[in-house]
Amino acid sequence: LRSICGDDGVSQGEAIREQHGKDESMHRCRPPDVVVFPRCVEEVSALARVCHKHHLPIIPFGTGTGLEGGVGAVKGGVCFSLRKMGQVLDLHQEDFDVTVEPSVTRKALNAYLRDTGLWFPVDPGADASLCGMAATSASGTNAVRYGTMRESVLNLEVVLADGTILHTAGKGRHPRKTSAGYNLTNLFVGSEGTLGIITKTVLRLHGIPEATVSAVCSFPSVQTAVDSTVQILQAGVPIARIEFLDDVMIDACNRYSALSYQVTPTLFLEFHGSERSVEEQVKITENITQSNGGSDFQWARDAETRNRLWKARHDAWYASLALRPGCKAYATDVCVPLSRLPQIIVETKDDLIENRLTGPIAGHVGDGNFHCLIVLDPSDPEELQRVHLFTDRLARRALAMSGTCTGEHGVGLGKKALLREELGPTTIQVMQLLKDALDPKNLMNPGKIL
Amino acid sequence: LRSICGDDGVSQGEAIREQHGKDESMHRCRPPDVVVFPRCVEEVSALARVCHKHHLPIIPFGTGTGLEGGVGAVKGGVCFSLRKMGQVLDLHQEDFDVTVEPSVTRKALNAYLRDTGLWFPVDPGADASLCGMAATSASGTNAVRYGTMRESVLNLEVVLADGTILHTAGKGRHPRKTSAGYNLTNLFVGSEGTLGIITKTVLRLHGIPEATVSAVCSFPSVQTAVDSTVQILQAGVPIARIEFLDDVMIDACNRYSALSYQVTPTLFLEFHGSERSVEEQVKITENITQSNGGSDFQWARDAETRNRLWKARHDAWYASLALRPGCKAYATDVCVPLSRLPQIIVETKDDLIENRLTGPIAGHVGDGNFHCLIVLDPSDPEELQRVHLFTDRLARRALAMSGTCTGEHGVGLGKKALLREELGPTTIQVMQLLKDALDPKNLMNPGKIL
Ligand SMILES: Cc1cc2nc3c(=O)[nH]c(=O)nc-3n(C[C@H](O)[C@H](O)[C@H](O)COP(=O)(O)OP(=O)(O)OC[C@H]3O[C@@H](n4cnc5c(N)ncnc54)[C@H](O)[C@@H]3O)c2cc1C
Ligand SMILES: Cc1cc2nc3c(=O)[nH]c(=O)nc-3n(C[C@H](O)[C@H](O)[C@H](O)COP(=O)(O)OP(=O)(O)OC[C@H]3O[C@@H](n4cnc5c(N)ncnc54)[C@H](O)[C@@H]3O)c2cc1C
Repeated sequence: LRSICGDDGVSQGEAIREQHGKDESMHRCRPPDVVVFPRCVEEVSALARVCHKHHLPIIPFGTGTGLEGGVGAVKGGVCFSLRKMGQVLDLHQEDFDVTVEPSVTRKALNAYLRDTGLWFPVDPGADASLCGMAATSASGTNAVRYGTMRESVLNLEVVLADGTILHTAGKGRHPRKTSAGYNLTNLFVGSEGTLGIITKTVLRLHGIPEATVSAVCSFPSVQTAVDSTVQILQAGVPIARIEFLDDVMIDACNRYSALSYQVTPTLFLEFHGSERSVEEQVKITENITQSNGGSDFQWARDAETRNRLWKARHDAWYASLALRPGCKAYATDVCVPLSRLPQIIVETKDDLIENRLTGPIAGHVGDGNFHCLIVLDPSDPEELQRVHLFTDRLARRALAMSGTCTGEHGVGLGKKALLREELGPTTIQVMQLLKDALDPKNLMNPGKIL
Repeated sequence: LRSICGDDGVSQGEAIREQHGKDESMHRCRPPDVVVFPRCVEEVSALARVCHKHHLPIIPFGTGTGLEGGVGAVKGGVCFSLRKMGQVLDLHQEDFDVTVEPSVTRKALNAYLRDTGLWFPVDPGADASLCGMAATSASGTNAVRYGTMRESVLNLEVVLADGTILHTAGKGRHPRKTSAGYNLTNLFVGSEGTLGIITKTVLRLHGIPEATVSAVCSFPSVQTAVDSTVQILQAGVPIARIEFLDDVMIDACNRYSALSYQVTPTLFLEFHGSERSVEEQVKITENITQSNGGSDFQWARDAETRNRLWKARHDAWYASLALRPGCKAYATDVCVPLSRLPQIIVETKDDLIENRLTGPIAGHVGDGNFHCLIVLDPSDPEELQRVHLFTDRLARRALAMSGTCTGEHGVGLGKKALLREELGPTTIQVMQLLKDALDPKNLMNPGKIL
């Protein structure tokens, strides 16, 4: 390995191995044996060949923001930190696409795009690497309008376990649409490093909207907030963001950021479009929220006021953590058909209270996806156990409602058993067939997903 | 086979075998040995088990509108006509989704949905079966706004070659979003019957827009029409349809339908939204087209006038055929990055003229995808040869511009060699690995794609 990356490339690994110890998630630190820092796809490929020859597990590492223990080296092996591959390549403004290497984050990309009139919308909150986001099939607040990574990736360069360099849609290809053979691109999107190392991602871009308006509205109940969401979608409002915060979360945000929102279920909304279109979207939305008993509908157009309005949403993670200083947070991630959302949220809130857990709720409600940000003391085994049982019950509740145990964070280490329940043995077997076909030695991020 | 489907189920096959002889495409008729008409997934599975046991090829048959010879039984075998499975199941209005069996067509589904305020937008022109559309990864005129089948399918029930019944996202699951394991759904979408028989498709629905406006605009050149398209997308106009017809096609349509459009490159547009939003979209679009030298911008809101305005586009296929009565038509299907579209269309038009071919052009220009509807006399081998060389040149031109040889029709029989050029040996090998993993006996629609 040293002969490929140089001394420097291997020794820097200490920092990453330490980082594994500081994992924000509930997953135990699992440092790799070695960390390598390849500088180009050829080095990634050469390193993979070495690992392949010596049967060493390969664990791709993006920016480490993943929430499901995906970078843990459960069987030891070599962590491929991709931080030295950070170029933005081949920006095609007229084609609305760009290619990024693995350490380019979404904020870095949007900074790079600033003067082009284009942007990349998928926003999982964390400033994750875009290749890591492809690997976990990330989405976040904008997905209701712009889709998830599944809809945003046009092509991938991937290094397979044996060092083979693959271009999922053919080298250099970037049409907006294709039906040329099997959709390999979307097989690798969401594969969480278990099928190959993503070394380039071709992304679809969007025009920056002429106008953006943010809004906030309080509701008497979870049901009325979700009913409003469904009606807004039914009315064809091309809403860009529609985020739900429950009363506990609003309370936490009020405290954390000295705000004074009503402590009730609340929707945070964002509208993109022309000046007149956003104006109208706001009007239609306000009518709908009013008819559902929503109150205190506030909206703002200039960036500063918008940021102030949305401050609660932006700070949700930190506001939750501040509820119990010194504790850590774990985010659940179920997603259900929209109509089931009120029931599952209400039942989940009861469950949290019954089990004395701190778990404010934030949700990408337009997609039926929500998170309990469970704040817990990881040194308390009894509490850990309660959290564990709670998250299992929550996932089973989602499964019973035709939903999924993971809307956007992926399976990683923690949801393998739930995945089996969700998909059933046949679907799991077919996934295993694909894994075996592409990685017969089970070297790529072993122990994850399946 | 008779013991499963009954006598009736097998003998009706004559009609389908005949239909193979009337194939509208350039592909030679390849009737299967037997046609079966299963009535439920269990029968499909039982029949597949028989075929598996006896090494008989399995060819799924939807509505036979596919353009790439996909239903041809090149190695003989058993055609699975799915026409007896025609239920619409599990309409979830509030969840914006529905489940359909294989013989439900898109028009039948939209008729079924009429009173719900919802619709299914993917529209490939032909009234194809939705499971067949999933199988070919179809798209069409609405894809620029609503996406293709890739973005529209939430879950599939599939019978594999050995009779196994698979639910790609887990049985009964229909969240709008998931990152639960490998994206099997999108592996089967676009697999053209080579990986399994789709027996149910769960589809994402959309709210019917409050207002629809259609428009038509003439341009001095291909370049100015495409420039307008790019600028309309850049301006963030949520355009629902943006279709290009070249001068030859407009001329054909004028003759066929007694219209009097200017014989120049023309855009047909459609806007969806609220009353005010479509009004504004029209205004922005008209400004953009004017600044590019567009003229005769006409628009209409009521259904009747809209249909009259778009008549040329709707009749394009028949208008092309009428150019040479008694001839057949073959549609090419390249797709390139938007910026390359003017050049490839201009070069292709020159090529058509040079080679004395009749090939009016219609394009889903917002996606960079266009078709030459080549009208040819299939009994003239010399002309057939000229068409063949032309389509190869066209595909290579698209490949040289980072595009694809098939934007939406799929690979089928005719584009296997081009697919290899497009993807390169490694990508093809990986596709073959997946095919071998899921269908080791190569029974599913053999001879297609790979
Ligand atoms: C505060 C916070 C909020 C979040 N909110 C959201 C949210 O709303 N929505 C959402 O979707 N996610 C959310 N996330 C999760 C997170 O942003 C994603 O998991 C992210 O996409 C992972 O990117 P990364 O580069 O950090 O990957 P890492 O954490 O480094 O890795 C994650 C997984 O992907 C694999 N991987 C990483 N890079 C590659 C590569 N180049 N090739 C192959 N495999 C690779 C790893 O092996 C691992 O399995 C949140 C995270 C945090 C910390
Ligand atoms: C006039 C005309 C215009 C068209 N325009 C467009 C267009 O603009 N955009 C576009 O995308 N397409 C277009 N098409 C193509 C056509 O509509 C699609 O190919 C259609 O999606 C195929 O559906 P089908 O049910 O007819 O499938 P078939 O023709 O019966 O089969 C097509 C392929 O899919 C497989 N298949 C069918 N059903 C199943 C199933 N249930 N399970 C597994 N495999 C199956 C078959 O084996 C075959 O390989 C057009 C066709 C015509 C005739």
